[in-house]
Amino acid sequence: MKQIEWRDGTVRFLDQTRLPGEVSYVDTADYRVIAGAIRSLQVRGAPLIGIAAAYGIALAARAPAPSRASVLTAAFDELASTRPTAVNLFRALARMRSALGGDPPAGGPAALALGEALAIHREDELMCVAIGAHGASLLPDPALVVTYCNAGALATGGIGTALGVITSAAGAGKRVRVYAGETRPLFQGARLTAWELQRAGIDVTVVTDSTLPWLMSRERIDAVIVGADRIAVNGDVANKIGTYALARAAADHGIPFYVAAPATTVDASTASGAGIPIEERPGADVSEWAGTRLTPAGVRVWAPAFDVTPAKYVGAIITESGVHRPPYTFSAPADGRREGAGSPGARP
Amino acid sequence: MKQIEWRDGTVRFLDQTRLPGEVSYVDTADYRVIAGAIRSLQVRGAPLIGIAAAYGIALAARAPAPSRASVLTAAFDELASTRPTAVNLFRALARMRSALGGDPPAGGPAALALGEALAIHREDELMCVAIGAHGASLLPDPALVVTYCNAGALATGGIGTALGVITSAAGAGKRVRVYAGETRPLFQGARLTAWELQRAGIDVTVVTDSTLPWLMSRERIDAVIVGADRIAVNGDVANKIGTYALARAAADHGIPFYVAAPATTVDASTASGAGIPIEERPGADVSEWAGTRLTPAGVRVWAPAFDVTPAKYVGAIITESGVHRPPYTFSAPADGRREGAGSPGARP
Repeated sequence: MKQIEWRDGTVRFLDQTRLPGEVSYVDTADYRVIAGAIRSLQVRGAPLIGIAAAYGIALAARAPAPSRASVLTAAFDELASTRPTAVNLFRALARMRSALGGDPPAGGPAALALGEALAIHREDELMCVAIGAHGASLLPDPALVVTYCNAGALATGGIGTALGVITSAAGAGKRVRVYAGETRPLFQGARLTAWELQRAGIDVTVVTDSTLPWLMSRERIDAVIVGADRIAVNGDVANKIGTYALARAAADHGIPFYVAAPATTVDASTASGAGIPIEERPGADVSEWAGTRLTPAGVRVWAPAFDVTPAKYVGAIITESGVHRPPYTFSAPADGRREGAGSPGARP
Repeated sequence: MKQIEWRDGTVRFLDQTRLPGEVSYVDTADYRVIAGAIRSLQVRGAPLIGIAAAYGIALAARAPAPSRASVLTAAFDELASTRPTAVNLFRALARMRSALGGDPPAGGPAALALGEALAIHREDELMCVAIGAHGASLLPDPALVVTYCNAGALATGGIGTALGVITSAAGAGKRVRVYAGETRPLFQGARLTAWELQRAGIDVTVVTDSTLPWLMSRERIDAVIVGADRIAVNGDVANKIGTYALARAAADHGIPFYVAAPATTVDASTASGAGIPIEERPGADVSEWAGTRLTPAGVRVWAPAFDVTPAKYVGAIITESGVHRPPYTFSAPADGRREGAGSPGARP
């Protein structure tokens, strides 16, 4: 299973909205299809969104010379407008802009853009391996773990972050059982995490999200592990709506709560969670499923896509550089590529 | 809208599984249809289940004399086996058994049974009014209230318990706004509570269940009000799965958490929540919706229908007799009708 790949001038990605019922790929040479896929959640997960956007720019850079500059401008604008919360998107676009900014050497912008996109993808793959190795050390043997949403291969360019920790621990011989919160409204836990763990041969049980605290009160849960869409310098974590509830419940029950994410998820320009823009999804995400209306017509729905978990509830943040413990004082990443017009500070 | 009524030898009930899309009634003269409706949640809500079961016995009591005794025995058995957690079911059946136990006076068992069933229904209607009046005094003006699942007219024989408090406060001129948790897996909040409150002209917004703690951290919520399926003598409350999570979240955010229920919901034979049997629903409640599979085939689901909220998280229990505050020390109800073969103590 390849969640996304470059194939000789086109991008092939797995349409995640059709899982688990159907494993279906989309091939495209048009960056607008990539942007649409990010917007409609065919491609989702903070790291994977960044990779997809980079490939989108690589596609735009293949436009014929006369229109290339305007196509690239439009592509940067459209891809940056898809989703506001995950910092990886803006970071990937900034890297692509920086890569294209220099004097075009032999091969021209298309080759430059592709090279940078492939590097972003490959780096993410390696980061996942490192995160998995560091995080696996936090799990006992046997381990009963709760996860939420999908921070797996389907959310990244590699083996995943939170699920990478779980599969790495299992790969190291630990007996790991998982409870996955279904993750309303879009069921990424029930659809995607259950599918990935089942394929990996890991014992997984799905429960509704509000069952998780009750589970914590009845069974000895060793850890809760989730991914992140953006981490502030002080360790506040933006992640799927429901993560805040889960972190508070873990604290109430004395269960360690861990976040696994590439270091690029840390946004050096955001001092605390208060500065993270939270995407609000259309009410239909909550009020409809499979073409059936759940709420009466005319009833209002509030559908934030993410929430912010204060650092004090986060027992550790696992990145490719290791296991970070509170108090968190992250700084700008060493590569200095964080700046640029794609800065999330400029987003609404 | 009548959630259930006796109509000249038949029972008419609203099929709640079709709401909010369709307001559709079922007419039946067969107690087995009533039992099936309770099992399939066409009729749900602890008080309403009791009323429906009483009407089911009233239907069975109309069997011709030669088979009446065996039909009644089968009806008691089948109705008692529908759902294990709500005590109201067993209490209503015990009352019906007691009413049918005496010497048949003029009119015979059918009239006796119907009289008792109508009394159970009418008493519930009056209890709801009293609960609403007592509970309304707990809400400030204006009030921003969270509710969960459906403890409204659709769950009772009257105006509801938790929703009766809300509509009574609004009726008394208080400006009440409500956030309703959608209530996975069966969406009673999104489908039923939103429908009832919309019809009552009360401002309601639906959110996913795991959004509620995040909401509590961002808005000033004045109270959380829910119903109950069974209350132990010490004040532990069995209610829809997710109630425990909500009560802990309310405590974390300093928000009063109230339970509204008829005094008959208190089970004098259950000392604490540990003695309350918790129904487990079929995994399909969670893994499928509207004919669409959410989880991959073969993945396990854990689907308890209820959880138990320890009394220490319950700020008040509102019954028809008033507002009870901790420490809770409930005793057997005065009517003494609690005993009998329908005792929940005998259930698995």
